[in-house]
Amino acid sequence: MNPTNEFLKTALIVGGGQGIGLGFVRGLLDKTDVDRVYATYRRLESATELLAITDPRLCCLQMDITDEAQIAAVVNKIQTETTELHYVINSVGVLHEGEMQPEKSLRHINAEQLVRYFQVNSVGAILLFKQVQPLIKHQNRSILATISAKVGSISDNQIGGWYGYRASKAALNMFIRNTAIEYKRTCPQAILVALHPGTTDTRLSLPFQRNVPPEKLFSVDRSVAQLLTVIDGLDASDSGEFFSWDGSRLQW
Amino acid sequence: MNPTNEFLKTALIVGGGQGIGLGFVRGLLDKTDVDRVYATYRRLESATELLAITDPRLCCLQMDITDEAQIAAVVNKIQTETTELHYVINSVGVLHEGEMQPEKSLRHINAEQLVRYFQVNSVGAILLFKQVQPLIKHQNRSILATISAKVGSISDNQIGGWYGYRASKAALNMFIRNTAIEYKRTCPQAILVALHPGTTDTRLSLPFQRNVPPEKLFSVDRSVAQLLTVIDGLDASDSGEFFSWDGSRLQW
Repeated sequence: MNPTNEFLKTALIVGGGQGIGLGFVRGLLDKTDVDRVYATYRRLESATELLAITDPRLCCLQMDITDEAQIAAVVNKIQTETTELHYVINSVGVLHEGEMQPEKSLRHINAEQLVRYFQVNSVGAILLFKQVQPLIKHQNRSILATISAKVGSISDNQIGGWYGYRASKAALNMFIRNTAIEYKRTCPQAILVALHPGTTDTRLSLPFQRNVPPEKLFSVDRSVAQLLTVIDGLDASDSGEFFSWDGSRLQW
Repeated sequence: MNPTNEFLKTALIVGGGQGIGLGFVRGLLDKTDVDRVYATYRRLESATELLAITDPRLCCLQMDITDEAQIAAVVNKIQTETTELHYVINSVGVLHEGEMQPEKSLRHINAEQLVRYFQVNSVGAILLFKQVQPLIKHQNRSILATISAKVGSISDNQIGGWYGYRASKAALNMFIRNTAIEYKRTCPQAILVALHPGTTDTRLSLPFQRNVPPEKLFSVDRSVAQLLTVIDGLDASDSGEFFSWDGSRLQW
C-alpha cells in the first residue's frame, strides 16, 4: 500500500457521517500515504454509508461536537494509538434541522435557534481546536481545515437573510483566525484555514438548490477533490486565512 | 427649549444604566432638539447615576436585552407615547462579569461562557433590531448605532486572545450588516451602523487599562461626543458599515 516508503499520515474527520465530511473520509482513504482515518458522526441513523465502509484503516467514533467531554473522549481514544494527527477536517455545520429553518427576515428571528446555530457552527469548532492540541504539537506538517461558507463573509454580504447561519459562520471565521494566531506560538507546524466548498449536493443545500445553476452545484466527490487540492497546496503563511474551492482567498 | 422650531427627536438608549450608554443619555439630553429619551438598564443597583437624573424628558425602563419579551414590552411602552424613534443606541456588551473573564488562550475556552457572550453581545442586538422595527418605519431619518469593537474585526486581528468577545462582536457585525440590507427594503430612512468607541474609561475596560497610553484612554464624555459627531455625519450610503470614533471606516 505504501511502496515508496512515503511519510504515512493520520487523519481525523469530524462530521464524517454524511455530506462533505463523508466525502473527505473516502477522499483520504483514497490516498496511499494515509494509513489511519478517524471519522466521527453524531447520529447512527444518518451515518449508515460511513459505517458500511470496510477499509481497515478507518475507525468510526460517535461524537457530538457541542459536548466538550465527547471531543475529549475521542482525542483520548486516538491517543491510545498515535501521538500525531496530520489532517483534521471539521465538516460539522447546521443550516436547517427539524423545525429549524434559516431566517428569511427579521420576523423569523428566534433567540433559541440563534444559540443553536452558534453552538453547532461556531462553539463546536473552537472546542475541537482546544481539545485536539496535544495531537498537533509535533514537528510534522498538519492541516486543520474547517468547512465555513462564503455567506459567512461580512464584506461579501449583499443580499441578507439567513441571519443565524451567516453570523455563526462569521463567528467561526473569527475563531479560526484567532486560533491560527495562538497555534503559531504553540503548534507552529499547524496550518489552520477556513474553506468555502461552493454549493455542494448534500442534505444541507438540498432545499436551496433550485436557484443554483447546474454547473455551480458540485457533487460531493468534486467538492472534496477541489478542497483536497487547496489543502495540499497550503503553506505556513496561509494559516488563519479563508479559501474558496478554487484556491482563491476570500475576504472576511 | 426649542426656540427655533426645529424637528424634535426621540431617542432610545439600550444599556443606559452605566458606561457609554449612560454617556449617550446625558449627551442626547444636552441636545435641544431631543425632546424624549427612553433609557433601559438591566440592574437597578448599577443604574443609580441614571436613575438620579431628574430631566423630565427622560424615561427609564428596566430591560434585559437577552429576553425578547422584555424588549417587546419596552417597545409597547414607547408606542403608547409616540410612533417614531430617531436615535436607537445599543450600548449593551459584556467582556467580563463575575467569574467570566475573556479567554487569554484556548485552555480557558468554556462552552457556556461562549454562549453567554453570544447571547448578550450578538443575539440581544438582533432581537432589538427585530422588535424596534415599527418605531423606525417612518419617513424621517433614524440612526441605529450599536457599540461594537475593533477587536471584533477579523481582518484587523493580529494578536489573538479574547475568543468569545471577539467572535461575538464579529457575529454582531454580521447581524448589523444583514439587518441594514433588510432595512433598506423595509425602513429605508433608517441608517444602521456598528461603532468602535476606542478604549473608554468604563467598568468594561477597567481591568485592561494598564497598557493603554493615557491619550488613547477616552473619558465617557469624550467618547460620546466623538461618536455623536460620527452619527450626525452619517448618510444613507453609510448604513451597514463599521465606523471608528474618528469617523474612519473599519474593515470587517
